[in-house]
Amino acid sequence: MKLVIGNKNYSSWSLRPWLLMRQAGIEFEEVQVRLFTGNFAAEIARYSPAGKVPVLIDGEVTVWDSLAIAEYLAERFPEKALWPADRGQRAVARAVCAEMHSGFGNLRSQLPMNVTAVLPGCGWNVAVQRDVDRIAAIWGGLREQHGARGPFLFGEFTVADAFFAPVVSRFATYGIHLPDEAEEAKAYADFMLALPTMQEWIVAAREERDFLADDEPYRLAPDRPDAIIVNH
Amino acid sequence: MKLVIGNKNYSSWSLRPWLLMRQAGIEFEEVQVRLFTGNFAAEIARYSPAGKVPVLIDGEVTVWDSLAIAEYLAERFPEKALWPADRGQRAVARAVCAEMHSGFGNLRSQLPMNVTAVLPGCGWNVAVQRDVDRIAAIWGGLREQHGARGPFLFGEFTVADAFFAPVVSRFATYGIHLPDEAEEAKAYADFMLALPTMQEWIVAAREERDFLADDEPYRLAPDRPDAIIVNH
Repeated sequence: MKLVIGNKNYSSWSLRPWLLMRQAGIEFEEVQVRLFTGNFAAEIARYSPAGKVPVLIDGEVTVWDSLAIAEYLAERFPEKALWPADRGQRAVARAVCAEMHSGFGNLRSQLPMNVTAVLPGCGWNVAVQRDVDRIAAIWGGLREQHGARGPFLFGEFTVADAFFAPVVSRFATYGIHLPDEAEEAKAYADFMLALPTMQEWIVAAREERDFLADDEPYRLAPDRPDAIIVNH
Repeated sequence: MKLVIGNKNYSSWSLRPWLLMRQAGIEFEEVQVRLFTGNFAAEIARYSPAGKVPVLIDGEVTVWDSLAIAEYLAERFPEKALWPADRGQRAVARAVCAEMHSGFGNLRSQLPMNVTAVLPGCGWNVAVQRDVDRIAAIWGGLREQHGARGPFLFGEFTVADAFFAPVVSRFATYGIHLPDEAEEAKAYADFMLALPTMQEWIVAAREERDFLADDEPYRLAPDRPDAIIVNH
């Protein structure tokens, strides 16, 4: 099984299936395609008809899109219980993943994932805060309900944790302030950020040299002298 | 089982589960909440924590988001075969639905669904055409592969047809030109538009009086004299 991903520093969509597989203990070969560099379009076209990362390749089967990959893996490895076992809870887990998958446009555009950057306060506006508040409500509500059974959103680790992992990273990069009463949501964000698989991703992101100018609305130039500046 | 939807003229997200259930012969009670009218926020909050349509309510279970609803129904009614039976094909079906669910931003913003309007040429630009070409490639590729087994994307009707139904409507409204070589894709769009369930939706959309100003980038005023002008 092969997982094609983009830059670890920038590709929020790639982080989801990567973390899902790593955390669930599903073996895979990692193939990295550097986003928007010289031959990105040609390279990614070898793997995906949609021209985007991530892509999962399992023998004859090619699955693109992070949510379709999650569903595929959940079916392929039922023993890993990637979705909650209870039908109602499974529906809620899929609903919050789908909400993340198609929504939170303000958060997405204003606070692009940038794992290694430190940009507190950048990008914030009232529309972003509405997205933040909704995410805090999702996390808080689920943790309150399932907290007794484990530290993840549904107690045990599920697809939902992988889907919100990029948001956890964004909140850290941009110093997002969760409401004071959102104790459960804050604790969850801290827990996820410290997760060894998440830390493994962050450490690898630090090794990357690409500076994607179009994904950097708040930095004119890279911090590191050996950076490679990439324009889409 | 209760399905909460928005205005049939405008709510592309609502059309998907509605068409899915109607076409698959799954009985449901339809609840309509008029989008962005006076008490929309309060009304929809009664049904969904995300504050958006569509919402499916099945006894104790509440599912929001069109894709999560589709997955829920596929599990709940296995005899309806809402996804392709073959694992590889099912993965492809989920990938194209997920691509539709989170992508095609240019098409979405430039050509908002407006079932009853006639706006040929409006909104078109090169970025929109890229989205159109990708959709034509998806439809054409699937029809070539599965055409012998039936008129839908995977031969038999699946979730994928429901997910692309709003695009079929958009192509009609804005007079979108599919590439000449895209014969299969054109035939599919014509077939879907003429589908009795799709026509049922369109006829109902004609009965609605709301004119949502923020979803009308190409009309200053409604055509019908009894229209109710709604600003978000």
